[in-house]
Amino acid sequence: MWNKSDKISTCDYTMAEAIVFGAPFDGTTSFKPGARFAPGAIRADFDGLETYSPYLNADLSRVNVFDKGDLEFPFGNAREVLNIIEKATTEILDDNKLPIMLGGEHLITLGAIRAIAKKHSGLNVIHFDAHTDLRDEYLGERLSHATVMRRVWEIIGDNKLHQFGIRSGEKDEFEFAALHTNFYPKLDDSFDITPIKSLKGIIKGEPVYVSIDLDILDPSVFCGTGTQEPGGILFNQLLNAIHALRGLNIVGVDITELAPNYDQSGASTAVACKVLRESILTVLPGGDFNNE
Amino acid sequence: MWNKSDKISTCDYTMAEAIVFGAPFDGTTSFKPGARFAPGAIRADFDGLETYSPYLNADLSRVNVFDKGDLEFPFGNAREVLNIIEKATTEILDDNKLPIMLGGEHLITLGAIRAIAKKHSGLNVIHFDAHTDLRDEYLGERLSHATVMRRVWEIIGDNKLHQFGIRSGEKDEFEFAALHTNFYPKLDDSFDITPIKSLKGIIKGEPVYVSIDLDILDPSVFCGTGTQEPGGILFNQLLNAIHALRGLNIVGVDITELAPNYDQSGASTAVACKVLRESILTVLPGGDFNNE
Amino acid sequence: MWNKSDKISTCDYTMAEAIVFGAPFDGTTSFKPGARFAPGAIRADFDGLETYSPYLNADLSRVNVFDKGDLEFPFGNAREVLNIIEKATTEILDDNKLPIMLGGEHLITLGAIRAIAKKHSGLNVIHFDAHTDLRDEYLGERLSHATVMRRVWEIIGDNKLHQFGIRSGEKDEFEFAALHTNFYPKLDDSFDITPIKSLKGIIKGEPVYVSIDLDILDPSVFCGTGTQEPGGILFNQLLNAIHALRGLNIVGVDITELAPNYDQSGASTAVACKVLRESILTVLPGGDFNNE
Amino acid sequence: MWNKSDKISTCDYTMAEAIVFGAPFDGTTSFKPGARFAPGAIRADFDGLETYSPYLNADLSRVNVFDKGDLEFPFGNAREVLNIIEKATTEILDDNKLPIMLGGEHLITLGAIRAIAKKHSGLNVIHFDAHTDLRDEYLGERLSHATVMRRVWEIIGDNKLHQFGIRSGEKDEFEFAALHTNFYPKLDDSFDITPIKSLKGIIKGEPVYVSIDLDILDPSVFCGTGTQEPGGILFNQLLNAIHALRGLNIVGVDITELAPNYDQSGASTAVACKVLRESILTVLPGGDFNNE
Amino acid sequence: MWNKSDKISTCDYTMAEAIVFGAPFDGTTSFKPGARFAPGAIRADFDGLETYSPYLNADLSRVNVFDKGDLEFPFGNAREVLNIIEKATTEILDDNKLPIMLGGEHLITLGAIRAIAKKHSGLNVIHFDAHTDLRDEYLGERLSHATVMRRVWEIIGDNKLHQFGIRSGEKDEFEFAALHTNFYPKLDDSFDITPIKSLKGIIKGEPVYVSIDLDILDPSVFCGTGTQEPGGILFNQLLNAIHALRGLNIVGVDITELAPNYDQSGASTAVACKVLRESILTVLPGGDFNNE
Amino acid sequence: MWNKSDKISTCDYTMAEAIVFGAPFDGTTSFKPGARFAPGAIRADFDGLETYSPYLNADLSRVNVFDKGDLEFPFGNAREVLNIIEKATTEILDDNKLPIMLGGEHLITLGAIRAIAKKHSGLNVIHFDAHTDLRDEYLGERLSHATVMRRVWEIIGDNKLHQFGIRSGEKDEFEFAALHTNFYPKLDDSFDITPIKSLKGIIKGEPVYVSIDLDILDPSVFCGTGTQEPGGILFNQLLNAIHALRGLNIVGVDITELAPNYDQSGASTAVACKVLRESILTVLPGGDFNNE
Repeated sequence: MWNKSDKISTCDYTMAEAIVFGAPFDGTTSFKPGARFAPGAIRADFDGLETYSPYLNADLSRVNVFDKGDLEFPFGNAREVLNIIEKATTEILDDNKLPIMLGGEHLITLGAIRAIAKKHSGLNVIHFDAHTDLRDEYLGERLSHATVMRRVWEIIGDNKLHQFGIRSGEKDEFEFAALHTNFYPKLDDSFDITPIKSLKGIIKGEPVYVSIDLDILDPSVFCGTGTQEPGGILFNQLLNAIHALRGLNIVGVDITELAPNYDQSGASTAVACKVLRESILTVLPGGDFNNE
Repeated sequence: MWNKSDKISTCDYTMAEAIVFGAPFDGTTSFKPGARFAPGAIRADFDGLETYSPYLNADLSRVNVFDKGDLEFPFGNAREVLNIIEKATTEILDDNKLPIMLGGEHLITLGAIRAIAKKHSGLNVIHFDAHTDLRDEYLGERLSHATVMRRVWEIIGDNKLHQFGIRSGEKDEFEFAALHTNFYPKLDDSFDITPIKSLKGIIKGEPVYVSIDLDILDPSVFCGTGTQEPGGILFNQLLNAIHALRGLNIVGVDITELAPNYDQSGASTAVACKVLRESILTVLPGGDFNNE
Repeated sequence: MWNKSDKISTCDYTMAEAIVFGAPFDGTTSFKPGARFAPGAIRADFDGLETYSPYLNADLSRVNVFDKGDLEFPFGNAREVLNIIEKATTEILDDNKLPIMLGGEHLITLGAIRAIAKKHSGLNVIHFDAHTDLRDEYLGERLSHATVMRRVWEIIGDNKLHQFGIRSGEKDEFEFAALHTNFYPKLDDSFDITPIKSLKGIIKGEPVYVSIDLDILDPSVFCGTGTQEPGGILFNQLLNAIHALRGLNIVGVDITELAPNYDQSGASTAVACKVLRESILTVLPGGDFNNE
Repeated sequence: MWNKSDKISTCDYTMAEAIVFGAPFDGTTSFKPGARFAPGAIRADFDGLETYSPYLNADLSRVNVFDKGDLEFPFGNAREVLNIIEKATTEILDDNKLPIMLGGEHLITLGAIRAIAKKHSGLNVIHFDAHTDLRDEYLGERLSHATVMRRVWEIIGDNKLHQFGIRSGEKDEFEFAALHTNFYPKLDDSFDITPIKSLKGIIKGEPVYVSIDLDILDPSVFCGTGTQEPGGILFNQLLNAIHALRGLNIVGVDITELAPNYDQSGASTAVACKVLRESILTVLPGGDFNNE
Repeated sequence: MWNKSDKISTCDYTMAEAIVFGAPFDGTTSFKPGARFAPGAIRADFDGLETYSPYLNADLSRVNVFDKGDLEFPFGNAREVLNIIEKATTEILDDNKLPIMLGGEHLITLGAIRAIAKKHSGLNVIHFDAHTDLRDEYLGERLSHATVMRRVWEIIGDNKLHQFGIRSGEKDEFEFAALHTNFYPKLDDSFDITPIKSLKGIIKGEPVYVSIDLDILDPSVFCGTGTQEPGGILFNQLLNAIHALRGLNIVGVDITELAPNYDQSGASTAVACKVLRESILTVLPGGDFNNE
Repeated sequence: MWNKSDKISTCDYTMAEAIVFGAPFDGTTSFKPGARFAPGAIRADFDGLETYSPYLNADLSRVNVFDKGDLEFPFGNAREVLNIIEKATTEILDDNKLPIMLGGEHLITLGAIRAIAKKHSGLNVIHFDAHTDLRDEYLGERLSHATVMRRVWEIIGDNKLHQFGIRSGEKDEFEFAALHTNFYPKLDDSFDITPIKSLKGIIKGEPVYVSIDLDILDPSVFCGTGTQEPGGILFNQLLNAIHALRGLNIVGVDITELAPNYDQSGASTAVACKVLRESILTVLPGGDFNNE
């Protein structure tokens, strides 16, 4: 008679293999803030989606996920926000569970990677994004959604950061990427999974963190975000890329930069929900009927 | 570190004096549907509001309320929806708790009153609304948001239904009201609490159900509703009316007809949240600092 | 089984006492265009409203009104638009029917008054508006929503233009009004029907055209308009003013400046629909049950 | 001087080969209601579109279509709604005209097919959709937008239901489809007209009903719908599919699931209007200049 | 032939008596961010308003104002933002001009007052707001829109902070106000200028800073703000209050908390523009025709 | 400390090679007006975009552009508007600078071409659009967004007008195009730069005006426009086409038909900003790092 109020969880914390949690921070957003509302919007609409994925022949009801809710942050203090995320992620890792973080803006990735890199040496980061996020500082700040991958690089080092979908940045950032990251500049519509397949051969077995900035998608597909960058990939291209990650040793995932209020239709939230479902079913292969 | 995900509850079910629950039904809405999204919207924004009421010098943290979540309904079957609401309300009453139902459309009131009238003989209903809701049938249907108070009258009888704020209906409904209900036709801005005060003298001690159709408010104050009727009362007029109910033997409350998607600004949801806070603090006087 | 597609008409053209028609022009709008969509929006939502007016104890079903549809205009040619309106109004007058024109922007009033002033000498114009509309020219143009009442004054002469609700204009316009129009400067909330009552004593029996620019209302009540001017009157104040016109010899009405797309909630369209219903029932007293 | 108020009709009822009518029902919509407003929105914007199709070198002005308006439904009673649709469709068929129904939600298809299957034995249904719609019941209801094609299958039998574009459903539905329907699972971007061409060879001459649930389109193209499912086809892919139906013995068409209020830009309504124009010109080849 | 691009300025910097500037910061907003877009929105729409005020019989064209543009801030660093505002304000004061700051969120007031209090000993602050803003810290932060007036009080001391319109806060804040500020609790509709008149008698000649948090207005009037608090004052009540300040020794003004994206109609921006015009004409009496 | 208020300019007028200016006119828009707000919207959001183009390896900071602001137009007088545009364009040409005009609706192109064709004999016009714009008159008017390219053809003659992307028009217009313009009818998704490359071989060295009606894009990419025509090209297809123009003798550019209010997400404005950046860097190759 009563609806399940927690629509993402399929089990309790103890049983869970993966922990979903929200990091509703958008304090360094330079253009249009509002990514703080993403975790709430995803939860509200998540049951508008089937639990079954015909793409993977897998079902959420067959995997163990728990939604721990949102972190509480002080407003206007990015440093403290990152500390809180790092601490929360560490707790989840200490319980031998996989963290799946829902942003918020992209800076939050740094908090999670700080925790994960301590646990997993030789960490790779697969980074889907429209923007390089490789500035050293942005308007005088070193902690920003525009610098986050530079800070991540400082932790994981050269050739461990694998960047896909980038179509915007400063000249310096593109030059930095050429020297220090594994960069797949795709400025046209030809984005496909070939380079991901090659990469899989190389990093197979190594720990991998997957950071999905949803603005990799074209604004036609995903307009509900703070820095819309026309010329992005279509939904099925991102879906194929996520599915191509199956089999990697994924130790953490985040999905960031939904700012739901900018898309009055709700389609951007539907996109984020489906990316979350397919990501869970990609990293937890137990949901797969083909495995039987 | 973690946000409270259940923002309305102040205690668990066992301790609670009042139970808030959602009845997300809008299946008989004749004009603009969407009241089904009201409970979710109220929960999402409820902590945008202080817990303290300077009007009543009372605080939510001092009362015991539990939010039981939303009822699950079959779509397109009003009869079954009412059965589910009646059953849920009965359970709450059986546990000696006060039901506070969040609509949904106004028809849901009938489900709750069916349960409550069985428990409390001589039930009065105080009805705040723009519309009479007194038709015998509407487009051939006897169960509808436009007939709900006629059905309620069939249960509670003459002179037990006290209607405030009405400014729309068919001629027949106004004539029916003149004969059978306690009707305060106020078609101008002069809505005040004088008739409520008089009424309190008469029904003091008798059981009272309070049904607040938020479209009693002028659309300038509350545009997020399915049947906007210009010429309504202002927010403070409704607030004063609710506060004036203090001291009555209130045995149930509902707050209906928020359709949040029609108000992109969110102001209508803010109105509903504040009406909910003030309603809780009105019916549970334990929150009052003046009582110390 | 089939819905009536023409929701405003209560009879056919021949039987009708009053003819409603649309003048979907907004070509001289200086700020936010879109009043061209008003007649369509009013028709779409008109049956969201009851036919019965509890204010007047009257019902649309008892009066004879026909909706002739919208005039077709060339875009970008204000002069020709006014000719078309004048011609259409003349036809309606020649059939001894009362024209009720739905704007469109306020310039359209000039077309109707040109026709009506030829038919009715000594014409009075009662003008509800936030703006004086008394400029001699606006950005070099003599035909504009900002000059329309100056052009009307050139036709009807001194002391025949009665202006209510004005709270915006240039200093020159206020000075012109002081010399040439019957001007009720009300810059506070005290707008009431006293001056209308006095005026009724003076112009009783003379022909009167009523022009309602809905931006006389405060933007809180009516935000769906091209030039929002905060500080206006509330809905019931306008309603009382319209009702106060009963008994005058009204020979034409217009309702202008709804730009429905700016009010996503639809409340402004609801306001326009209710103003239309009450205007029809004011000018056609046959709908009144009290007359029986 | 006057605009044609009925923008879809090109002739009167008697002359018409095809009858367009609205079925503004959304009572079983499980997620976001509002498809009831689709027929009104399509009519309001239909003349924003040219009458000429450069794709088909055909023009609406050369075919005979009549718009009969909207059916009137009781709210909250799906069973009665289907009866009304069946009756209306039967009348149109009895007059030897082709019904083109504008939804409303997808359940309405069942009403039309009940009428058509009585008239045309061996009926095929071509079904464009994101969702299988093959559940046996949904939340306890057998009549629902999520069960409609299961009910249709009960009428027309195995291998008569041809489903295109499906990318969402429960595992059971996909398994049911594998056994009982002609199912083209296309979960990537490669949707093209090859399978439609093959099908045409098989069912040539047999009666065919075409049901277009517009949510087959990707939400980027068509966000104004109640259950957005990312990963759909693009506009030209749907257009090509519709054009590929030319030459079939089409005995009925519906276009469903536009919920215009969720797309503030109006683009989804423009899509629906163009799909309607191209559908009319596909089923009524008399409009084709190439035929001369 | 060319539009004036700087719509607020009436002269250059050197000639100006008052300097308008934007402080587009919303980094501590706890609920809905977006006040950063206010200065841009006000500039875009400012010429939708007449330059003439019929309320004051004054005209912007007769006063000397210069719009210096927006300050540039680092994102996510409230401390540095306040330093930048303090520095900018000091420069304006050093040039013997009156600063008129456009927020942004309310925290920015602290930056301006730090500068002004150094220049003007015995500073009074007149504070229009829905919220007390008197917390000592908020979620661990001492610099926040919810603590700003506590920080201001630390600078100016007891009985120098005059608070109007407050209807929300924690119990502690109301108690703090009772002890330390000049507090006018008005929780009903009776807000008028009597207390302002009394206050004027007391502080006549002393330096006064005026801080207008626009959320003092009811959300019906002003929904475009981050923390909507139903039950506020109407537009004319605020206008009268501002006009009542004429004659005081005003040494600085700010207008904060417009978040224009939440009000799709633009009416909230129109309100802010009119408050700005009337504020300028109140503090710079040279615009007044009555003075001639 | 202060933001640059003029975000498009990179130098002053004297130094500039190209002059950006706004022509905020939408007076002949037949469907949804609002293109007048495009220049303001583009300026407000232009710095949401990087100055660096990874597509061209070029940067705005290396080219000399000046934004001259908006032209001021009389409302409702298309003839005079065109005169003003022609005069402004002539002035820019007389200063040996390249005009880059931001619409406004498409009619404005005529004003610019009148000026440019006088200066450059043998002018070619490359026309990106969804619509032919080749009518001889539209609703009785010869000056209209629907006739503009017919008027342009009257100036430049046969085979000088090169039209791309067209998917809508009357049969007569397509026939006119077949006889008089260089027309690339592409009604499917295969739009690519092959025909542009061929054209470049033919017109190399001749003066070329480039007119970009942004509604060439599919409404999924660009819904913020007055006449949405589903079935258009994707963003990267337009980008490639613009880049393919490099090396031509381009003597003027316009970008028209953004109507920003119809796209609440702002994505359409982001598209227009990026088209502007890439257009500037295409016509002013000095920004290219590869040239070093």
